[in-house]
Amino acid sequence: MSDLEEVQRQLAETKAALAAIKGKDGTVSPLAPSSTYDIFTVPGVTLSAVAAEVRYTGRDDVMMMKLDSGSTIAGVFTKSATRSAPVLWCENALAQLTDSNEPIGVIANAGNSNAFTGFAGEESTKAMAVGTAEALGTLPERVFVASTGVIGERLPHQKIEAVIGKLADTLDPSCWSQGASAIMTTDTFPKVASVQCEIDGETITISGMAKGSGMIAPDMATMLAFAATDANIGQAALQTLLNEGTAISFNAVTVDGDTSTSDTLLLSATRQANHLRIEDAEDARLADFRNALNTLLRDLAHQVVRDGEGASKFIEVQVTGAETNAAAKKIALSIANSPLVKTAFAGEDPNWGRIVMAVGKSGEKADRDALTIRFGDILVAEKGWVADGYREEDGAAYMRAQDLIVSADVGVGNGEAKVWTCDLTYAYVRINADYRS
Amino acid sequence: MSDLEEVQRQLAETKAALAAIKGKDGTVSPLAPSSTYDIFTVPGVTLSAVAAEVRYTGRDDVMMMKLDSGSTIAGVFTKSATRSAPVLWCENALAQLTDSNEPIGVIANAGNSNAFTGFAGEESTKAMAVGTAEALGTLPERVFVASTGVIGERLPHQKIEAVIGKLADTLDPSCWSQGASAIMTTDTFPKVASVQCEIDGETITISGMAKGSGMIAPDMATMLAFAATDANIGQAALQTLLNEGTAISFNAVTVDGDTSTSDTLLLSATRQANHLRIEDAEDARLADFRNALNTLLRDLAHQVVRDGEGASKFIEVQVTGAETNAAAKKIALSIANSPLVKTAFAGEDPNWGRIVMAVGKSGEKADRDALTIRFGDILVAEKGWVADGYREEDGAAYMRAQDLIVSADVGVGNGEAKVWTCDLTYAYVRINADYRS
Repeated sequence: MSDLEEVQRQLAETKAALAAIKGKDGTVSPLAPSSTYDIFTVPGVTLSAVAAEVRYTGRDDVMMMKLDSGSTIAGVFTKSATRSAPVLWCENALAQLTDSNEPIGVIANAGNSNAFTGFAGEESTKAMAVGTAEALGTLPERVFVASTGVIGERLPHQKIEAVIGKLADTLDPSCWSQGASAIMTTDTFPKVASVQCEIDGETITISGMAKGSGMIAPDMATMLAFAATDANIGQAALQTLLNEGTAISFNAVTVDGDTSTSDTLLLSATRQANHLRIEDAEDARLADFRNALNTLLRDLAHQVVRDGEGASKFIEVQVTGAETNAAAKKIALSIANSPLVKTAFAGEDPNWGRIVMAVGKSGEKADRDALTIRFGDILVAEKGWVADGYREEDGAAYMRAQDLIVSADVGVGNGEAKVWTCDLTYAYVRINADYRS
Repeated sequence: MSDLEEVQRQLAETKAALAAIKGKDGTVSPLAPSSTYDIFTVPGVTLSAVAAEVRYTGRDDVMMMKLDSGSTIAGVFTKSATRSAPVLWCENALAQLTDSNEPIGVIANAGNSNAFTGFAGEESTKAMAVGTAEALGTLPERVFVASTGVIGERLPHQKIEAVIGKLADTLDPSCWSQGASAIMTTDTFPKVASVQCEIDGETITISGMAKGSGMIAPDMATMLAFAATDANIGQAALQTLLNEGTAISFNAVTVDGDTSTSDTLLLSATRQANHLRIEDAEDARLADFRNALNTLLRDLAHQVVRDGEGASKFIEVQVTGAETNAAAKKIALSIANSPLVKTAFAGEDPNWGRIVMAVGKSGEKADRDALTIRFGDILVAEKGWVADGYREEDGAAYMRAQDLIVSADVGVGNGEAKVWTCDLTYAYVRINADYRS
């Protein structure tokens, strides 16, 4: 081999090593769902998406949803003390919501979160609501506004106002995927899900979309999700169902433990289905609906994790044997948020000592000498020490899978919880350290 | 330029890019203190260090400290529910401690933390205590044991027992740095500090050592620190002083938010100084000593952060205007532990939106529209929005420094706190994802 060939070979090798660390830009997450979803249309719901060039060019970045007369809506929002103007607007709109004949509107943009923008933020939000209300023939206070993207930059809402007419003119029942694409920021794939169930023998549809790509993505602050059903459910019952479902879906996932200033989850019911209205979330007729809703929310939440920044592994953390369910969830989140646990997963290292550490630091009660840890079905540790039959090579082989289950029984009670997370990779650092530079 | 030269140039460039990402192995942290410390010997304290090859070869890995008759000792330990056998031993020893004529011993090893090792862990700890007690002519319950290193592997305590005689034979007042080197794991430099002060006109010395290199390092679980003074202070007062000092030093630093199963901080007083014994921590004669002790603890704690895994920036986070001091500390830790904030620092990105996010997610009260953020002296944001005079290039220039100060006034009260942290770099992921593989 000539000198030139040898140096060329070394260059190729070094470039490959560099690429492996830096991760791939512009490609879809390796954890993206492999099959495409059939999205059922929801009677009474139409959507549209257009390009307003708020920040991005060459792609749609504003989404509109119209919910016909007779609809109601429920919402869950970030608890952040520094939540954005659109979140405050939506909270207020929800508090004032009455049953009326006017439709309900949703307008959402990507590229600028309109968070921490002072009075200008309120102006921009109001302008979006007023413009949408006029176009949809409703009142501004019946329009829900969401923005996702950079924090602290004034939102050029004129660009959005300029496309509201086009959005209203192109509303269509089948535009769920287009809507999901329009609200993407650092997301690498659009997130949609759709389920059907029955209430009183009637077929009911629930469809939804979400965007991540962290509980907060970098400057791209936000997790947004919008879902709708034709079920005939009263507002209070709908809100209760959404609260319950959120606790075991969106509030049980974490990418980096950072909470967005803009997190918004809306669930509307157009109430066009032919069953009698249900006003009580505990109504027995809701059993199937509740399951279907929870499935849909969990599906969307998992997609957010599967598109977590830099993610190469999807991890389910199961905790049992805690004092209460709440304690179990706190321990599970302690594991799922631990940088040391997450980097071990990235390195495919069956490092169960870090699970022990994360259980210990949670602040919840655990019996060190009754602690059991499993990777999938592999018993790793029990009774305060490594399990007799455990072989490191079995743990290492398990870690090479893309979807992992880690379970810990902490030996003090009957509380249990599941949460979902992804690993912490070089690519997470790259995306978040290099984004604005 | 020939083809060969051109390809060689490209190879050199690519290798440099790879090296920049991968970080430097075997080199000292760029944040290490540049000057060497003068370590004052402490009357009544002798130390030694030898190689027992617990895990490492070619270096000392066991440290012994002897505190002469008349000494007392105070301790602070991890609150982890899965704390190690040595921690449980020390807590018990401290609870039983009486004033007696026997000396006090400390024995610490690196390479194996003896954590989550079941009954075998207790055996190993006891063996180390018994061996040390025999060599020093004291009781096992007057020996404090600390271990740092891999979790979940049985400690080969026979290797340590085999060198106890040599440790006892080579005790020397000046071996602080050797002791600090012997307890290093992923640390890149030994951490020592020494101060002098006065009590009742007498010169008093406090010297100490610590190891990191995170609140928990990877498998290398532990922050250990040992300090000693010749001050004549009663046990209860010494414990109070240590508790107070820990709150504003070791308990105000974070590398990754992960809490070790082995964290141990011991402060002994040989009581050989010529002032009357002080039994009350509130005694006015302790004013200078208290300052000196806090300075020493903060110095050691800062060194731990400066050797944080992969650290390239040392960051002081100041929070003012919170409801209480405790609320301020919680907000400061929310900023200091945020992966998004820490990666922004790594990327030298003056991303103040992430500071807003971290304030918001802390769970403590903050007034979004009164929030003020500064990078050093640069006013970045105020009254809920970017400051009028702020220029992004000023923020970017500030971020290029190695030592940074970020301050946030949250506008609701008079509570304040300072915490210290480092950035989150590629090298952190490398160290923690790749360590065992």
